[in-house]
Amino acid sequence: MTYCVALRLNAGLVFLSDSRTNAGVDQVGTTRKMTVFENSDRLMVLTTAGNLSISQSIRQIISDYVNDRGESIWTVTSLYQAAQLVGECIRLVHERDAKSLERFGIDFNVSMLFGGQIRGERCRLFQMYSAGNFIESQNESTYFQIGEAKYGKPILDRVVTPESTLDEGAKCALISMDSTLRSNISVGLPLDLLLYEKDSFRIGRFVNIDEQNLYFQMIRNRWGQQLRSIFEGIANPTWNAWAPASAAGEVQDSDPTQPARIRPPRQQATGVSNAAPEPLQTLAQQPPSNEQH
Amino acid sequence: MTYCVALRLNAGLVFLSDSRTNAGVDQVGTTRKMTVFENSDRLMVLTTAGNLSISQSIRQIISDYVNDRGESIWTVTSLYQAAQLVGECIRLVHERDAKSLERFGIDFNVSMLFGGQIRGERCRLFQMYSAGNFIESQNESTYFQIGEAKYGKPILDRVVTPESTLDEGAKCALISMDSTLRSNISVGLPLDLLLYEKDSFRIGRFVNIDEQNLYFQMIRNRWGQQLRSIFEGIANPTWNAWAPASAAGEVQDSDPTQPARIRPPRQQATGVSNAAPEPLQTLAQQPPSNEQH
Repeated sequence: MTYCVALRLNAGLVFLSDSRTNAGVDQVGTTRKMTVFENSDRLMVLTTAGNLSISQSIRQIISDYVNDRGESIWTVTSLYQAAQLVGECIRLVHERDAKSLERFGIDFNVSMLFGGQIRGERCRLFQMYSAGNFIESQNESTYFQIGEAKYGKPILDRVVTPESTLDEGAKCALISMDSTLRSNISVGLPLDLLLYEKDSFRIGRFVNIDEQNLYFQMIRNRWGQQLRSIFEGIANPTWNAWAPASAAGEVQDSDPTQPARIRPPRQQATGVSNAAPEPLQTLAQQPPSNEQH
Repeated sequence: MTYCVALRLNAGLVFLSDSRTNAGVDQVGTTRKMTVFENSDRLMVLTTAGNLSISQSIRQIISDYVNDRGESIWTVTSLYQAAQLVGECIRLVHERDAKSLERFGIDFNVSMLFGGQIRGERCRLFQMYSAGNFIESQNESTYFQIGEAKYGKPILDRVVTPESTLDEGAKCALISMDSTLRSNISVGLPLDLLLYEKDSFRIGRFVNIDEQNLYFQMIRNRWGQQLRSIFEGIANPTWNAWAPASAAGEVQDSDPTQPARIRPPRQQATGVSNAAPEPLQTLAQQPPSNEQH
């Protein structure tokens, strides 16, 4: 299913993608999902998820594509226009392939992250959909994700800000990817990690990360250890208050000191004494001390 | 969409559920999703996700349901049999409602966590599906989740073991819920948290957690702070090695020191000098020091 994340920071852009592909659990492969389009006045990065044949077809035509107005991604003056051209490529492939795929019960499913910088403009980042439409990352949205996005989202929400450095963004993206790798087998190594420094118009920093990569091993080990360590450092709940017993029989949805409780109905002979439920222990009102234990 | 998690530990069971319901973003409500079925020789907890009308209908009939063999959840001697009875209730509601729902384009979609203990047996935990079938938590699977499960899965994978205490399990479930609450608006407070100590046949510990709950506030604040703190403590990547520049023009999928790079095709006049791409910085081979900075 893939996982790709892209961060738009004040300092520039960070892109991270995995490379696992599958057509079912017995047909797993490796294909890189990041492509860089570069010239001296522009740098654009594309990462893809969804149906691999569709995303590869689109990637194949983007560079050579010239629309009716004679525009290509190499000549437009704004990344917004470049994103529109990528959208036109998606629609071309849709026109060519969607009906045939449908006959085999396959959806035309593709999503992309497309970002970079054209000289004269700021860095920009877009998330593109199967219909060829897209949204842009504005001030408040520091990152986009495609593919198996949910496992790795909480850490991005907690840690990344527009003021983060590119290295901090890369570190966060790798932790986000690590959470995803551990939880979903459709995402796998190696990874492509690219850092783009604003106004540089060159890749600058790139690494393909496999199982032997020492930095990623360090992140994976340390992050896991540290998580367990802060988990142990947070106080366990203290149960020392008593909530009253509920009355026998009825469901009690409205009393927040009790769960909704159901006792055996009278007409059912259970052969067991239908004793009244006992009172419950509930959380103490004072929060526990924040000291380590 | 809901989030419910249940842990099966050596010490007993932990159940946590949220209470947000929605029929679209303009129709959001609150309904508790946890129900306890109790008698002096048994305690069973049910938490539900999916279509609310379906899960409520099922919950309504479980207690009174007696099958053709005269069995009910109050008389069977094994929780496995009780789970089968819950499955029969799901199928009854399906028989009654599924066709009508389908006419309105609504799926018969329900999932449940059902667990507890009947005297004479160990604690057991089941995950139940729309078809009335189910799976059981065995040794290796310490927890089940239903609803928006992905955001909160990584912490469960990293921290919980069968040897965890009930309080540690509760703490972990709350952290898992916190990650989910922050990332998905279809999950919301208040929460129902229930701890069951094995062989007790009583609820023991229960709390309904709302925004004012001091313990949960403490977890939310401390967990976030500590995460940021360990994030800052992990070394940033060190970029001091240089990968060679790629040759102009061709996509290079097979060279892991480079991303796949595409330059403007010769036939496109770009008006910009088609300079050769510059070499890339890549990660240093030595991992950075593990010391704090």
